[in-house]
Amino acid sequence: MSKNAKKTAIRITRAEDFPAWYQEVIKEADMAENSGVRGCMVIKPWGYGIWERLQRRLDQRIRETGHENCYFPIFIPLELIEKEATHVEGFAKEMAVVTHHRLVEKDGKLEPAGKLESPLVIRPTSEAMIGESFARWIRSYRDLPVKINQWANVVRWEMRPRMFLRTSEFLWQEGHTAHATEAEARIETETMLEVYRQLAEEWLSIPVIPGEKSESERFPGAVETHTIEAIMQDGKALQAGTSHFLGQNFAKAANIKYQAKDGSEEFVYTTSWGVSTRMIGALIMTHGDDDGLRVPPTVAPHQIVILPIARDEETAGVVNPAAAELAKRLNAENVFGEAVRAHVDSRDINTGEKRWGWIKKGVPLIVELGPKDLEKGSVMVTRRTDIYAKAPEDTDVFVGAAPEHLEAIQRKLFDDAASLRDARLETGISDFAAFKEYFDTEDASKLGFVRAKWCGDASSEEQLKKLSVTIRCLPYDQDGKEGVCVITGKPATVDAIFAKAY
Amino acid sequence: MSKNAKKTAIRITRAEDFPAWYQEVIKEADMAENSGVRGCMVIKPWGYGIWERLQRRLDQRIRETGHENCYFPIFIPLELIEKEATHVEGFAKEMAVVTHHRLVEKDGKLEPAGKLESPLVIRPTSEAMIGESFARWIRSYRDLPVKINQWANVVRWEMRPRMFLRTSEFLWQEGHTAHATEAEARIETETMLEVYRQLAEEWLSIPVIPGEKSESERFPGAVETHTIEAIMQDGKALQAGTSHFLGQNFAKAANIKYQAKDGSEEFVYTTSWGVSTRMIGALIMTHGDDDGLRVPPTVAPHQIVILPIARDEETAGVVNPAAAELAKRLNAENVFGEAVRAHVDSRDINTGEKRWGWIKKGVPLIVELGPKDLEKGSVMVTRRTDIYAKAPEDTDVFVGAAPEHLEAIQRKLFDDAASLRDARLETGISDFAAFKEYFDTEDASKLGFVRAKWCGDASSEEQLKKLSVTIRCLPYDQDGKEGVCVITGKPATVDAIFAKAY
Repeated sequence: MSKNAKKTAIRITRAEDFPAWYQEVIKEADMAENSGVRGCMVIKPWGYGIWERLQRRLDQRIRETGHENCYFPIFIPLELIEKEATHVEGFAKEMAVVTHHRLVEKDGKLEPAGKLESPLVIRPTSEAMIGESFARWIRSYRDLPVKINQWANVVRWEMRPRMFLRTSEFLWQEGHTAHATEAEARIETETMLEVYRQLAEEWLSIPVIPGEKSESERFPGAVETHTIEAIMQDGKALQAGTSHFLGQNFAKAANIKYQAKDGSEEFVYTTSWGVSTRMIGALIMTHGDDDGLRVPPTVAPHQIVILPIARDEETAGVVNPAAAELAKRLNAENVFGEAVRAHVDSRDINTGEKRWGWIKKGVPLIVELGPKDLEKGSVMVTRRTDIYAKAPEDTDVFVGAAPEHLEAIQRKLFDDAASLRDARLETGISDFAAFKEYFDTEDASKLGFVRAKWCGDASSEEQLKKLSVTIRCLPYDQDGKEGVCVITGKPATVDAIFAKAY
Repeated sequence: MSKNAKKTAIRITRAEDFPAWYQEVIKEADMAENSGVRGCMVIKPWGYGIWERLQRRLDQRIRETGHENCYFPIFIPLELIEKEATHVEGFAKEMAVVTHHRLVEKDGKLEPAGKLESPLVIRPTSEAMIGESFARWIRSYRDLPVKINQWANVVRWEMRPRMFLRTSEFLWQEGHTAHATEAEARIETETMLEVYRQLAEEWLSIPVIPGEKSESERFPGAVETHTIEAIMQDGKALQAGTSHFLGQNFAKAANIKYQAKDGSEEFVYTTSWGVSTRMIGALIMTHGDDDGLRVPPTVAPHQIVILPIARDEETAGVVNPAAAELAKRLNAENVFGEAVRAHVDSRDINTGEKRWGWIKKGVPLIVELGPKDLEKGSVMVTRRTDIYAKAPEDTDVFVGAAPEHLEAIQRKLFDDAASLRDARLETGISDFAAFKEYFDTEDASKLGFVRAKWCGDASSEEQLKKLSVTIRCLPYDQDGKEGVCVITGKPATVDAIFAKAY
């Protein structure tokens, strides 16, 4: 077999067709599938298990930063959502609307009945509902700050859905806080973006660029939107989490006031921030390869899968208990502050098929255990980050070193992704001709982020639209040096990150 | 103050007006509140925190019994829900229907636009959606059993909503399984009801009676519905969890077939089972008293609250760090398989107000710590199960004994509830006149469960309706003896539990 014809487990490679490869990985790793409802997916155990582990970590960080979980209604009355003009404009085109509350049979068909006096929209986000609650809860400076979070489903009607990236219903957390001062609300906005940066980089091995959005890319109703931007393997950007400083916009819309120490009445300052199941899409497009998914050990539902190999029942009687015992020993080890998660796959199908199944699902470590391995006191180990280097290891040594193996894989995934980000971060472009040429490429392997000066003119963003390029963010690490805008040629001091994006 | 005039923290007592008391407890314990959307509540941190701890335990048990979590769309196409006739009939009157996917402004008002070709209902339960997935997933006996669970919000339009008990939107878990054989599906149904019984009795200290529902009380589309029935302090029953054996009804409706070992095509047998935020209502009405909520330590967001007492800043400088240190020592202890949850309340309000606030919230242990206590090396301890017996305890002894204190409170709550259940379980009624008299009472303190023989005639249930009484279940512990039906007087061998119910 020639090198170029190397067979891959995913039949479409990233180089051949990145979007098709993405769908194939989701299918082959059995993470999710399209449902009968347009734009809505079924998240299957492997995909949902990754989400749950991401969720558990983020939930812990949200608590540690002083927030409490609540739950608000899924329905928003029209009167409420109307209050903040920019907000409703931003979401009006994608809101699912409930107009009836029962069904009746007519000519053998069901149809809606019980028309509501006033329609209800399904939350695209909960600012409107939570603003109403804040207005009830907050009376005095003593009630502040209010810092809450909710894990929920939200609906934004998608005309062009893509699993995990854009679905009509998605899962997320949305944090909402109210503060007495602008300074405190700004610190909150930054703190939560930093929590997201850590989640992406330290927990999901996804390197990101943190920064502020330009005006046209802000959340509807926000004063400032802060973001973490990740680079996918096709050179496109993916916004992986956002934190909004809402100023007093929503406080004024919902009339959220407090009595200050001096007796005066003031509007609060609010923030909101969210991360969604979109992060799973980022994870796939950051870590996946032509053999399927690669899951960071921190969020892998199984970190280690043990495959007992037995051709007959007699051997199975020896190998299966040994596999169970090995899993037990591994599960007694700790890594990333939790017990190791080892799983025995004793399904009645051949080992090769099983092994490739788990490789496609991206399990960090696959361990084969047959009668000969047992005799030698060793196991055959495959690291997902190096699937062609299957090698025997002494069982006791392997058990003790399992946490280090997993940590090494976690680091390797980050390093691989960071190399890609560095290779695809173009900082040498300073005029529009070169800029245009860069983004005109048909070759995904040459695409990436351009970091260059930007003058801040709204008109310059119009130019970008024609290239399907957007300003991803104004990164935090500004050099402040004078230069010229890469689009307009005007004097500019601000650095911006430009990219095509999901 | 005379004994009869003893002041209670909840202004309406259980004896005075049980439903009003219930609403007051929810308000005073700050668990939830009505939202601007009719029938939908906002679950506040104290209420949601209890739910999260219930959820964590149940999730663990669901995994231990071999199920995996997934997520299915919130929307169900009409064509799908139409398939199982009994099922759709059962839910048609309470389904929220989405008919449009955007809003437009007209004469300064928003109105629905983008009419959907076919309306979508918001899931009242997910049998229809999951059935469709099962039909895709299941091909061969090798794919069985499929055992999944989802944590989700569901909507059943409520005309007479009550917080936690009947809300238009509620949170729950719904388990769904498919099996090759009837026997296996029946075992699954029973296993999950037993998981629910343990959750209620061992985790929430709520004694229940497990049994099977009579035909008229079955889940729409089920062959059998199994239930755990709890008794509230007003003598009414509350169905706290159900597990359904669905036979092949949904398999036939959704065409879920598998190829058996012998090559034949067979329909699977399915089950479903659920527990919802209604359980929080059961918890309040089982454990609450005239001073507010009492939370079982297993699910209390804070198990111990420490109140530092300091009248001036200098004292605060000594007492606050001591309180923090005490919390740290307590949190290093373990109880119910987890770390103890102690919290310091250093808000700037007076200690009496704080103490009563936590009593109303039902915190199991309240600890006051002032400068004099510090000198003596002791703390002042209030047990929620005995709030008038505040007493000093040596600090070191208290820390070491905290887990035992919490375990004792957990037991006490169960014992109190079990005493009530025993006192309110009437087994001496055998004719309809006495039965009618029993349920005719206006005195809630005399109401409860009647256990008596039942002939099984559907017409007898019509008689019950007039008394607002239902058959709660046919309990598992049948004696099989011959007797006469308490309603019809016909010969009967089956024992039934009769009660008024939530």
